Amino acid sequence: MHLTDATWTDVRDADADLAVLPVGSTEQHGPHAPLGTDALHAETVAEAGAARYDGEVAVAPTVPVGVAEEHRDFAGTLWVSPDTFRSYVRDVIGSLAHHGMDRVVVVNGHGGNVPALGEVTATVSRHDDAYAVPFTWFEAVGDHGSEMGHGGPLETALLRATHPELVREDRIEAAREGASETWGDWVSGTRTNLAHDTAEFTDSGVVGDPGGGDADLGDELLDLAAASLDRLLTAVADRDLTAER
Amino acid sequence: MHLTDATWTDVRDADADLAVLPVGSTEQHGPHAPLGTDALHAETVAEAGAARYDGEVAVAPTVPVGVAEEHRDFAGTLWVSPDTFRSYVRDVIGSLAHHGMDRVVVVNGHGGNVPALGEVTATVSRHDDAYAVPFTWFEAVGDHGSEMGHGGPLETALLRATHPELVREDRIEAAREGASETWGDWVSGTRTNLAHDTAEFTDSGVVGDPGGGDADLGDELLDLAAASLDRLLTAVADRDLTAER
Amino acid sequence: MHLTDATWTDVRDADADLAVLPVGSTEQHGPHAPLGTDALHAETVAEAGAARYDGEVAVAPTVPVGVAEEHRDFAGTLWVSPDTFRSYVRDVIGSLAHHGMDRVVVVNGHGGNVPALGEVTATVSRHDDAYAVPFTWFEAVGDHGSEMGHGGPLETALLRATHPELVREDRIEAAREGASETWGDWVSGTRTNLAHDTAEFTDSGVVGDPGGGDADLGDELLDLAAASLDRLLTAVADRDLTAER
Amino acid sequence: MHLTDATWTDVRDADADLAVLPVGSTEQHGPHAPLGTDALHAETVAEAGAARYDGEVAVAPTVPVGVAEEHRDFAGTLWVSPDTFRSYVRDVIGSLAHHGMDRVVVVNGHGGNVPALGEVTATVSRHDDAYAVPFTWFEAVGDHGSEMGHGGPLETALLRATHPELVREDRIEAAREGASETWGDWVSGTRTNLAHDTAEFTDSGVVGDPGGGDADLGDELLDLAAASLDRLLTAVADRDLTAER
Amino acid sequence: MHLTDATWTDVRDADADLAVLPVGSTEQHGPHAPLGTDALHAETVAEAGAARYDGEVAVAPTVPVGVAEEHRDFAGTLWVSPDTFRSYVRDVIGSLAHHGMDRVVVVNGHGGNVPALGEVTATVSRHDDAYAVPFTWFEAVGDHGSEMGHGGPLETALLRATHPELVREDRIEAAREGASETWGDWVSGTRTNLAHDTAEFTDSGVVGDPGGGDADLGDELLDLAAASLDRLLTAVADRDLTAER
Amino acid sequence: MHLTDATWTDVRDADADLAVLPVGSTEQHGPHAPLGTDALHAETVAEAGAARYDGEVAVAPTVPVGVAEEHRDFAGTLWVSPDTFRSYVRDVIGSLAHHGMDRVVVVNGHGGNVPALGEVTATVSRHDDAYAVPFTWFEAVGDHGSEMGHGGPLETALLRATHPELVREDRIEAAREGASETWGDWVSGTRTNLAHDTAEFTDSGVVGDPGGGDADLGDELLDLAAASLDRLLTAVADRDLTAER
Repeated sequence: MHLTDATWTDVRDADADLAVLPVGSTEQHGPHAPLGTDALHAETVAEAGAARYDGEVAVAPTVPVGVAEEHRDFAGTLWVSPDTFRSYVRDVIGSLAHHGMDRVVVVNGHGGNVPALGEVTATVSRHDDAYAVPFTWFEAVGDHGSEMGHGGPLETALLRATHPELVREDRIEAAREGASETWGDWVSGTRTNLAHDTAEFTDSGVVGDPGGGDADLGDELLDLAAASLDRLLTAVADRDLTAER
Repeated sequence: MHLTDATWTDVRDADADLAVLPVGSTEQHGPHAPLGTDALHAETVAEAGAARYDGEVAVAPTVPVGVAEEHRDFAGTLWVSPDTFRSYVRDVIGSLAHHGMDRVVVVNGHGGNVPALGEVTATVSRHDDAYAVPFTWFEAVGDHGSEMGHGGPLETALLRATHPELVREDRIEAAREGASETWGDWVSGTRTNLAHDTAEFTDSGVVGDPGGGDADLGDELLDLAAASLDRLLTAVADRDLTAER
Repeated sequence: MHLTDATWTDVRDADADLAVLPVGSTEQHGPHAPLGTDALHAETVAEAGAARYDGEVAVAPTVPVGVAEEHRDFAGTLWVSPDTFRSYVRDVIGSLAHHGMDRVVVVNGHGGNVPALGEVTATVSRHDDAYAVPFTWFEAVGDHGSEMGHGGPLETALLRATHPELVREDRIEAAREGASETWGDWVSGTRTNLAHDTAEFTDSGVVGDPGGGDADLGDELLDLAAASLDRLLTAVADRDLTAER
Repeated sequence: MHLTDATWTDVRDADADLAVLPVGSTEQHGPHAPLGTDALHAETVAEAGAARYDGEVAVAPTVPVGVAEEHRDFAGTLWVSPDTFRSYVRDVIGSLAHHGMDRVVVVNGHGGNVPALGEVTATVSRHDDAYAVPFTWFEAVGDHGSEMGHGGPLETALLRATHPELVREDRIEAAREGASETWGDWVSGTRTNLAHDTAEFTDSGVVGDPGGGDADLGDELLDLAAASLDRLLTAVADRDLTAER
Repeated sequence: MHLTDATWTDVRDADADLAVLPVGSTEQHGPHAPLGTDALHAETVAEAGAARYDGEVAVAPTVPVGVAEEHRDFAGTLWVSPDTFRSYVRDVIGSLAHHGMDRVVVVNGHGGNVPALGEVTATVSRHDDAYAVPFTWFEAVGDHGSEMGHGGPLETALLRATHPELVREDRIEAAREGASETWGDWVSGTRTNLAHDTAEFTDSGVVGDPGGGDADLGDELLDLAAASLDRLLTAVADRDLTAER
Repeated sequence: MHLTDATWTDVRDADADLAVLPVGSTEQHGPHAPLGTDALHAETVAEAGAARYDGEVAVAPTVPVGVAEEHRDFAGTLWVSPDTFRSYVRDVIGSLAHHGMDRVVVVNGHGGNVPALGEVTATVSRHDDAYAVPFTWFEAVGDHGSEMGHGGPLETALLRATHPELVREDRIEAAREGASETWGDWVSGTRTNLAHDTAEFTDSGVVGDPGGGDADLGDELLDLAAASLDRLLTAVADRDLTAER
């Protein structure tokens, strides 16, 4: 059940207590991939996971802009402050819970959202009338996760599988040439990244090889992520929340 | 240029200073129309207006949830607080302006957003590095505007024209029966509405006759709204902003 | 019962559950009318309405400064941010309700306060221990409302009836000459006003003809507004609030 | 020049850089004195001081409700949170400064406002485009200050001089009987008051003897306070603010 | 019981309902005394008072930075905004209360914290699940309090008694020469201090004579303060809080 | 240079532009280790790193309470909200920068602070007049990091080396028995932890074997962490910040 398409009477009759809330980002993904990559992927995975789950899950509309100021040097990147993002997600979860959909998995497509989502789902679970956990798709695709990068093999492969018309194949070479191999500017032996902004370490905005994954890999990633989300939804649905409240 | 589909290099090369930001709501629209009606309409009109405008306009991704707590008694209605909504819109406009798209028309599909949008566009224009104004599509369709209602003839007609599969025609009668003729619970001679929530005056969530407009009317409404938005974009592009800053 | 003049034992003994809270603005009203026009009018109407009402109503002290940054280009105009204004009104209503005066009509004299008052009265009614609605006097004077303007026929007439010493009759001509006929700078067919500040469309700060209404009209306006407020107070006192809470 | 009565052209022509902002409270002052005592006194003293000062001073409208939750157990007491109060005062000073009235003395009538005013005037002076200091009238009447109390000899005497009709002389005895001799519930040798609310130590709301001062004393207090304010205005007008900014 | 040193099982077994929270400042205290003077003194007094009290008292870790922007012109002075300081103290008290330590004395070493602590302890006591009061050590040492100054005889004497290695005795003369005799820049007959920052009235940062108190005086001050705190803890432990909640 | 011990003239004369700010937590670390473990460790490592660095570094006082609500079920655990924590750290960094110490390494001892520190150091670096990065000691000790746990081998070993009197060796067995092997309650194949609070997965509060590391390991860890911090300080001192601002 997609809330965008459902009527209020549909929701009333479905009587779900489980929802997924896709959250993306609209931010640079290199010269070859669209700004909307993270939002598109979050939505795709959320729908696939909900479809696979054996039970009713409401799919909320996708939050399109997240915590992405780190990409501000690349044109078209949109962002809201972490405070604003947390408030937006918290309020939406609050209104889902108002209608009884008080077990919410936030399906995330953007690494920069991870800390804020960890915080806001904990806050909601401890202090509001809902239980929420985050799920970031590229952390739930098995060993592939280690090759994530940015606008790199994984994200580009998933686009090739789901939105091939949005991949500018003729710019892959340019994307690759300006790419960084790794994310950040690290001091050896610490986990401290000196670069707060991505333009400090990548010229094209890309990290990793955008040519490193085809549509078949994309299909596999989607399958893996959907299966993981299915397991998570089952666990959330079954969880005893007595101790949380 | 849709930012969701464009790459950062596309935005850089387009060098636009004009953007539209569609803002909707995900809220009850009666038993016959989807919760996403306002977001869908805002997006449709924004795209149509931008297409008609003779010049480059960036179309930002649609903000899907707005100020709609008034519908909280109807299942599936989502909302954020007015403060959260203003912060989200302000931050998104700020990031658009960061890239030079500092003349922004917020294209709105929901009456409940109007006061918050008036406030935030004034704040942005006076205190931030952007100029912004709101545009609400159903206030820009000539005399038709007077029949707006809620989930009534206009909104349903526009859905019939653009998303007919989302209109449950077999529930129109139920929608009509539980509908209110007018919005609110007014004290005679004042403009004070005693009802803060819509459930106080409508049973089906509808105001007006959802059968009162067909797809042809929908086409006409879209044409009128797009023409109005085109005129507004022209005026905003031409405006001397020296005095604003 | 005016709270400013009453003692705490008077309030305790009166045991009212109904209050009016006048809110004004201190802002330019042309060269002929005082900055305090809106606060004075709100207070006058609140007192007249409370006097006409058949029952006990507490009249709270007038909030003198509101949402008026739009007039910032005219000397002496004072304002607070919309957030500050909402907080101030919300807190005052909260303390009224603490003493049992939990049905509150906010009597408003300034158009710029209308959106913020709509928001804060809804917030209070939904989330605090009070029920509140706004009432703007010039929206409650029948057909006269259409001639409102700013520092124009209605406001000046009411001053002539209640505070004639504050009208500079010898400057009416100057006020008229620099006046605008209508409020705002509109794009045809939209309800979008391009001008966030009033100095963009009026030189004297006035909209409408300040000579267009004499003291007799002022008396009539006060009578109409007081009668409307009386009806509203009756409706608020009688309202079943079970569903609001 | 009272801003409430002046027109914008008056303010423009006066070209003052000095303003006084009266701030009161609407709170219990015993069974004999009105809730508005502090606001009335702040306004009276502000006007008297401005009149005595040899130069142009704008008198802003009085902020009627302050930080007074400590009196919440007495009916009719109004309050806003300290945060709200600081925001309101800060914003008003900001708008005064916008017009060049950037040296502001906040004339205060309520002890409970003192800490918040100390904070907000420092904040304004360090971080905004204005210089502000607080002035509390009963701290500026020489040795009389030590007898302040609450609703006691000083405040009642000043009312007798300026608003005799608001003193319920027939309730003085009741006020006295329920009064406390001193403010608070102190632990010996500390300056720690265990009582956050006044109802913990006074039954009538009064501290001190409300019969202890007649109208002559009131006249003397007003004269002393006005003279002190005059000296302060002179010092503020003459102050070199280079180092503050 | 010092919370820093105790384990969670120690706290569980101690079952205390009383806690002291030392709050200091890290700010200039002249050329002869360390920036940490106020934090050190708050901690010393808190420990001494808790040791003297006949019962279990948890000693929380010291909040090291407070409201001290007034000293910003002197190198090394640290500060947080009053809002931040109140939030930090309020949250810490809230977590103490979560474990049943819901009677809290905030032991303060810095005059600039006094208004903020008065406000936050009242807020906590009225609106949270705890009772809290402030205690400032140099206001609880009998007649000595009148000689407080800043980096003057009292604070330096207490350092000589407790941390003699931190007093630069060879700079006492320099400290004295640049010192002010009194705090602030006052307008005669008012209690208005025109100087928001200390650099406006003291060159060395000192007020009073830093040579005016030896270690014996320091011992006496500590003894007096500890005895006062002991009395306060007894009063707080015995207080009936029914009326507060 | 420790700011707590230094005088303002010392700071002025040192003219440092580099500072370390230790931030801890006061929270359960099992029945054998003190609540202050994280604050103590942060301070120890900050001092050791600053001592090893070849140049002037100011050591700010330790922020004792952080983001630790996850341990709320264990007595004595203190916490502030993430918002409060970020504000406190941001304000302190702001005051360091005011004096020219505008390159700040936040030395952290608590995993729960990591997301908030990532956010606030980015905010400060992008929007304030300082550059800041976080450093978490147990992420900078080479391969040992993988055995971190909570109150486990690493933290206990470091305590044995630096504060042996605070380790309750006779409770190690109890700590071990109630310990969890791993942190959290994970859904297979996702990185989603279902447990927002630690009491959901550990009975003693411990994760890992608290007997698994002796004082020699503690010395090694301190040496490794100090060396890492030294390298980071060098990198921060040398960094070209032109692009950050």
